[in-house]
Amino acid sequence: MDRTITVLGGDLRQVRLAELLTADGCDTATWGLEQGRGPNPVPLGKALERDILILPLPVCRGGELNLPLTDMTLAVEQLWPKLRYDQLLLGGQTGELSPRLMADFGLTLLDYYAREETQIANAVPTAEGAIQRAMEATERTLHGSRCLIIGFGRIGKLLSRRLQGLGAQVSVFARKFSDQAWVEACGCSVFRFAGGELGEFDLIFNTAPALVLDAGRLAELRKDCVVLELASPPGGVDLEAAGVLGRRVIQAGGLPGKVAPAAAAAAIRDSIYHILEERGEPI
Amino acid sequence: MDRTITVLGGDLRQVRLAELLTADGCDTATWGLEQGRGPNPVPLGKALERDILILPLPVCRGGELNLPLTDMTLAVEQLWPKLRYDQLLLGGQTGELSPRLMADFGLTLLDYYAREETQIANAVPTAEGAIQRAMEATERTLHGSRCLIIGFGRIGKLLSRRLQGLGAQVSVFARKFSDQAWVEACGCSVFRFAGGELGEFDLIFNTAPALVLDAGRLAELRKDCVVLELASPPGGVDLEAAGVLGRRVIQAGGLPGKVAPAAAAAAIRDSIYHILEERGEPI
Amino acid sequence: MDRTITVLGGDLRQVRLAELLTADGCDTATWGLEQGRGPNPVPLGKALERDILILPLPVCRGGELNLPLTDMTLAVEQLWPKLRYDQLLLGGQTGELSPRLMADFGLTLLDYYAREETQIANAVPTAEGAIQRAMEATERTLHGSRCLIIGFGRIGKLLSRRLQGLGAQVSVFARKFSDQAWVEACGCSVFRFAGGELGEFDLIFNTAPALVLDAGRLAELRKDCVVLELASPPGGVDLEAAGVLGRRVIQAGGLPGKVAPAAAAAAIRDSIYHILEERGEPI
Amino acid sequence: MDRTITVLGGDLRQVRLAELLTADGCDTATWGLEQGRGPNPVPLGKALERDILILPLPVCRGGELNLPLTDMTLAVEQLWPKLRYDQLLLGGQTGELSPRLMADFGLTLLDYYAREETQIANAVPTAEGAIQRAMEATERTLHGSRCLIIGFGRIGKLLSRRLQGLGAQVSVFARKFSDQAWVEACGCSVFRFAGGELGEFDLIFNTAPALVLDAGRLAELRKDCVVLELASPPGGVDLEAAGVLGRRVIQAGGLPGKVAPAAAAAAIRDSIYHILEERGEPI
Repeated sequence: MDRTITVLGGDLRQVRLAELLTADGCDTATWGLEQGRGPNPVPLGKALERDILILPLPVCRGGELNLPLTDMTLAVEQLWPKLRYDQLLLGGQTGELSPRLMADFGLTLLDYYAREETQIANAVPTAEGAIQRAMEATERTLHGSRCLIIGFGRIGKLLSRRLQGLGAQVSVFARKFSDQAWVEACGCSVFRFAGGELGEFDLIFNTAPALVLDAGRLAELRKDCVVLELASPPGGVDLEAAGVLGRRVIQAGGLPGKVAPAAAAAAIRDSIYHILEERGEPI
Repeated sequence: MDRTITVLGGDLRQVRLAELLTADGCDTATWGLEQGRGPNPVPLGKALERDILILPLPVCRGGELNLPLTDMTLAVEQLWPKLRYDQLLLGGQTGELSPRLMADFGLTLLDYYAREETQIANAVPTAEGAIQRAMEATERTLHGSRCLIIGFGRIGKLLSRRLQGLGAQVSVFARKFSDQAWVEACGCSVFRFAGGELGEFDLIFNTAPALVLDAGRLAELRKDCVVLELASPPGGVDLEAAGVLGRRVIQAGGLPGKVAPAAAAAAIRDSIYHILEERGEPI
Repeated sequence: MDRTITVLGGDLRQVRLAELLTADGCDTATWGLEQGRGPNPVPLGKALERDILILPLPVCRGGELNLPLTDMTLAVEQLWPKLRYDQLLLGGQTGELSPRLMADFGLTLLDYYAREETQIANAVPTAEGAIQRAMEATERTLHGSRCLIIGFGRIGKLLSRRLQGLGAQVSVFARKFSDQAWVEACGCSVFRFAGGELGEFDLIFNTAPALVLDAGRLAELRKDCVVLELASPPGGVDLEAAGVLGRRVIQAGGLPGKVAPAAAAAAIRDSIYHILEERGEPI
Repeated sequence: MDRTITVLGGDLRQVRLAELLTADGCDTATWGLEQGRGPNPVPLGKALERDILILPLPVCRGGELNLPLTDMTLAVEQLWPKLRYDQLLLGGQTGELSPRLMADFGLTLLDYYAREETQIANAVPTAEGAIQRAMEATERTLHGSRCLIIGFGRIGKLLSRRLQGLGAQVSVFARKFSDQAWVEACGCSVFRFAGGELGEFDLIFNTAPALVLDAGRLAELRKDCVVLELASPPGGVDLEAAGVLGRRVIQAGGLPGKVAPAAAAAAIRDSIYHILEERGEPI
């Protein structure tokens, strides 16, 4: 690729991303990644001149660019005016920032994290990280343990398969008939809340964004049952009730960046290549 | 359930379906299933009086009801006028027959085969049947064989997993980035047609409804490669070119009814129960 | 390899073996394999002059060389005197023939089928063939079926894993505590004969050489349960009692040669190479 | 069981063991497990009077009983004279202590850790713990990583299967032809040291007790490759050379007691029951 790239801030994922792009032969510079030893660091002025700017995931924290790996700070409202309409900005979880940048500054900001294939690719480190957290949290083996997965979307499907591969007995709660058919086709048991049966589980993984484990259901759990919350806040577990009842809930959000930044970076790289390919500017 | 059911014609799936309904305590009669020993056979007059009539899959062949397990015949245009608007008709692959029966006779005909969960449930015997046919067709073991699956929908996903479980090396061709991400998340290799690589495969399973294996690609196959066509006609293989080139293609459509009618019947039963539940008339 | 090889008689495995040796660059001739199109056929006189003679599996049937793929016959007692002490004979299931040939004729006959690694390699097509036979014999899918494996040696281990991969529920009967520990470590259930529980199984695979399924136990089976006998005669099933009771038993011996002669041939080739390597005459 | 049991010292495994025995209805007391909240603690005098004494794993550290969960100490040479010939002592890794106790004190000490089935059962938490350690040590996912297992005994077999279940690519080094046949039958690749290929691996798990990764081979590893040493000391890795070369080696011995004491306790319980059953004194 002829165009020049700057990876501008972010966490270890962006460091690994810069390394992957460099390894692919892209002319890649970094800024704001010193503490992660981002390759080819350049001063801010140079960094902002390049053709493609890759912003963090998420882009901002408060009004600042998301910069956990440097002591510097950068207010985004000072950043946007310095950029040009012919540059391509790529960021993670850009949400309403994209239309605002276009309206206010004429800037093109695309989301490298919102694509379906990126969500699927990230479900792999999420599922694996959930297994790591479960192993760390229990005195048992996953082998032989009775696990309940709530929700059977991307994460539920990939997690169930890995738990089976480790010898766990896997039940899944899913509301839709079609999801239940997938559960059975994947060799898991369909779980139905009828009262009382939650006491049989050693581990519960919540992947659903809606409240499923309310106080009544939490009360059914065994004392030594561990609940892993994988959904984004507010998640599917009544944390206050869990505290009162003495049920153990492990907050396990944002796993890809924590347990496998290299894998998460590869998913972002692929997403960026797909975006460029679809724009007719393949890498 | 208080309502009475007749299973009216069909193949071994309908025989097994009638047995499953009977085992569940439903008042079930059959007509037109003698050669499959359908339970509780009744004369046609009685059969047509009951609350729910379960028709074959597909419902008709030509203008006749689909009756492979009896020597009798029944022209559907003579059948419809005998039925009542307050009866519930359930059939497989009803297509445009449903709106026509409503318009012409005021009859309600619902499709027990079109539901998403039924398609998923049927993908299990399809995948397993494909494996059986592949085993029968080859001198090798699936263990260690190099398999290509074309398409990564329901059948492709379930087939890939089973082939992996048997020790095959599985590559998948899928066009969409999101499907490719699933392929990798499931531990298979993404295959890309770049020319020449088709010669590495021992087995190719086509699940895509569009022409993928044209003459040029068929010419790349090894002579001893076996192609299984799982998609509905016209399928994804140029059969004429395959014949000219001497490539071996096994037509493997309609597997659930052939290799596992009991499993296919269970899927139809579940579908019927879901239909009744959604109509507020649970079994 | 400088030495010349003749593959002398046998079934499709020997044809494939001759092809594999040829593909590896060995100077290979065949005799007695016409109906299987053995490569490089030569007259008997030439065939017997070569350095290494590969005999069938088993070597003889009655007093004749085992020659299913030719109309010719060859009495082994006429064969042995024509061979030389400096030739290497390799055969399958040679048993007491080896010491007798050495004693009577000074000939070296080694068994290519008795090696541990060959037994393991052959357990793969045996396990896969058992699955094929089970699929052919039942109207259900293996997915969701309840299977009992009797014995947990080579075949039991490899079969259990494949059945799990296809979504079956697998129980195993094994007497030794250590085998039971393997059963659990492999994610299967340990089955114990306590009376009555045999009625839960859809499929039973016997791999044990001792009588396990006697009349009393056969009586416990459901009528539609299918028993596959994988052990060598007399096997582990009371066939007479099964006949009286109307239980379905499928004789499934010698599967590798039947369902996957190419895989069986590869196992024999590896065995021959290992024999030569251990004799200091590597291929 | 009528006989009374004391669990005397040990770590969390012995605490869980005492709980399991209690749950099975055995009259169980503990001594020396206060910090792990061993159930039914009794004074030493009472503890030593009971029928069966379960000692730690290993029994001693130096001349003291192995007592990590109490502030008390107990010199074993003061312990033995207080015991009676009609008591049954059970301990872990008893080695030459058993014959010495019989010779010097007439005491029967059996090893609950040496049985084959116990070794197999412990290989499950070892394999799972190795996966946990590997996940913790790397920025990648195991999914898609290239793993080498050295040795294909109990741990190698169970580990390879789990790594495959998580989507890793698994190669195995094993010397014996029969082990190599198992490797292939389990769907892994046989690795051969020919020079240079070690650089392809992301993770290496050593299970072999002999030096395999010497300085020359360690030099072939990539800088970011992680080696997990699962074998007992001295293990199979030249640690000094690894230090000089800057290769990362994680000592991962004794995993069952560390990552899954509950599973390890269940294995010890089963072993004790088997010992009692074989002595004609079943639980």
